[in-house]
Amino acid sequence: MIVIGEKINISFKTVRNAVELRDTAAIQDLAKKQCEAGATYIDLNAGISCKDEAERMEWLVNTVQEVADTPFSIDSPNVSTLKAGLKANRNPKPVINSITGEERRFQAVMPLILQYNTGVIALCMDDSGMPETVEDRVLIAGRLIDRLTREGVALGDIYIDPMVRPVASHSRYGMDSIETIYRVKEEFPEVHIACGLSNISFGIPQRKVMNHAFLIAAMTAGMDGAIMDPLDKKLMSLVYAGEALLGRDSFCMNYLMKCREGLLE
Amino acid sequence: MIVIGEKINISFKTVRNAVELRDTAAIQDLAKKQCEAGATYIDLNAGISCKDEAERMEWLVNTVQEVADTPFSIDSPNVSTLKAGLKANRNPKPVINSITGEERRFQAVMPLILQYNTGVIALCMDDSGMPETVEDRVLIAGRLIDRLTREGVALGDIYIDPMVRPVASHSRYGMDSIETIYRVKEEFPEVHIACGLSNISFGIPQRKVMNHAFLIAAMTAGMDGAIMDPLDKKLMSLVYAGEALLGRDSFCMNYLMKCREGLLE
Repeated sequence: MIVIGEKINISFKTVRNAVELRDTAAIQDLAKKQCEAGATYIDLNAGISCKDEAERMEWLVNTVQEVADTPFSIDSPNVSTLKAGLKANRNPKPVINSITGEERRFQAVMPLILQYNTGVIALCMDDSGMPETVEDRVLIAGRLIDRLTREGVALGDIYIDPMVRPVASHSRYGMDSIETIYRVKEEFPEVHIACGLSNISFGIPQRKVMNHAFLIAAMTAGMDGAIMDPLDKKLMSLVYAGEALLGRDSFCMNYLMKCREGLLE
Repeated sequence: MIVIGEKINISFKTVRNAVELRDTAAIQDLAKKQCEAGATYIDLNAGISCKDEAERMEWLVNTVQEVADTPFSIDSPNVSTLKAGLKANRNPKPVINSITGEERRFQAVMPLILQYNTGVIALCMDDSGMPETVEDRVLIAGRLIDRLTREGVALGDIYIDPMVRPVASHSRYGMDSIETIYRVKEEFPEVHIACGLSNISFGIPQRKVMNHAFLIAAMTAGMDGAIMDPLDKKLMSLVYAGEALLGRDSFCMNYLMKCREGLLE
């Protein structure tokens, strides 16, 4: 399972303060904790629509790579911010979070993928907006994969994000995500699926319970990555259990190791 | 979700002692707790191969129905024990746990289903033993459903148990169960699926984590019932989250109610 640690995001108040104060220790601590907890990537989000976003991203990259060599997920819709992060990066191959099928965004982000040889998270949306049906999501995913590979991106460097919508908004939205994952993975087994996990629980109380359930449901459908909280011990326990359950952990070796390390709850 | 509460089973030492001492209060307490926690059925297992098994089952039925009107799952491979339980039962329509495709057992249990108008848990095995492949399990399930319905049992009274095997024994066994559930439910949407949930985690530590993951994976594949521990608050929380997630709980109404009642964790 590809765990993209979501904690260094300016939408969290403590992170916003730490970034504004350029509090190196606070950010490094959050990075180290996520790595120790099993993050495969560290997502860096420096905020949007603020004038010094690019400079903040550069600072985040430099601050974290002083203490961790985990690859980054450089998270911004703005090309100048992505560029600042990628230019500063010295850790292993990062992913860009994200590209979409929107023509302007595609054209702007695509050169960065090639120039910096990155992976890329591709959101299932395009110029007609957020797709309403599973069918449309799968179509957009297919078109994105087709375009990216024609530009030279390897299938294994593509992470499709099915655009998870909150189940509180519509009873269908959980199943929509699960079916989209299943169908994309069936059609493109080499492509990764990476969901923004906690989107499912927006607007309801006890969000973690719903996130836990969604993790396993989505893994069962074929999801092999997620932007998620690696510091949620129960969530990570379910990652290890899910991998063993779904035949991705021979003889439960990794599960047993995590258990011995006291990481299961 | 059909929750078949598993706690009154002689394989638990405290239950064995309570049954041997005919400790009415202890058994009634365990029954009431399971009902309060959301059990749809109370499974009663009085042990096997002991001379007074039938009398013990009769005592269990009478003891529990004094304090709870939840229907029973009468759990025994022995016809005389099933008969004793069914004869004593005054609660709503019970299920027999279980019938199989083994010819002698089928012939012996079938008349009880009709005489007492019960539901029935049907295990995916027959005279050739425990099936090795998903294909064989689905075939045996199909044959059992065909025979039961020809005898007059309604599809909605049949609970197929795919015979969950421990994932510690073979990495494939989790996926085998999940695929069997998916295929049986696809072919027979009106039939229920009821797994012995904790079989998946036999032989590994921290069994609850694996049971939690398996619950959601199996629900995602179409499982709508399980023999399980309703006193495991996290497991029940995942039941409510899973139902909302899979579109079986409009606007998360039940999830929100359970949350208000303090039942989620």
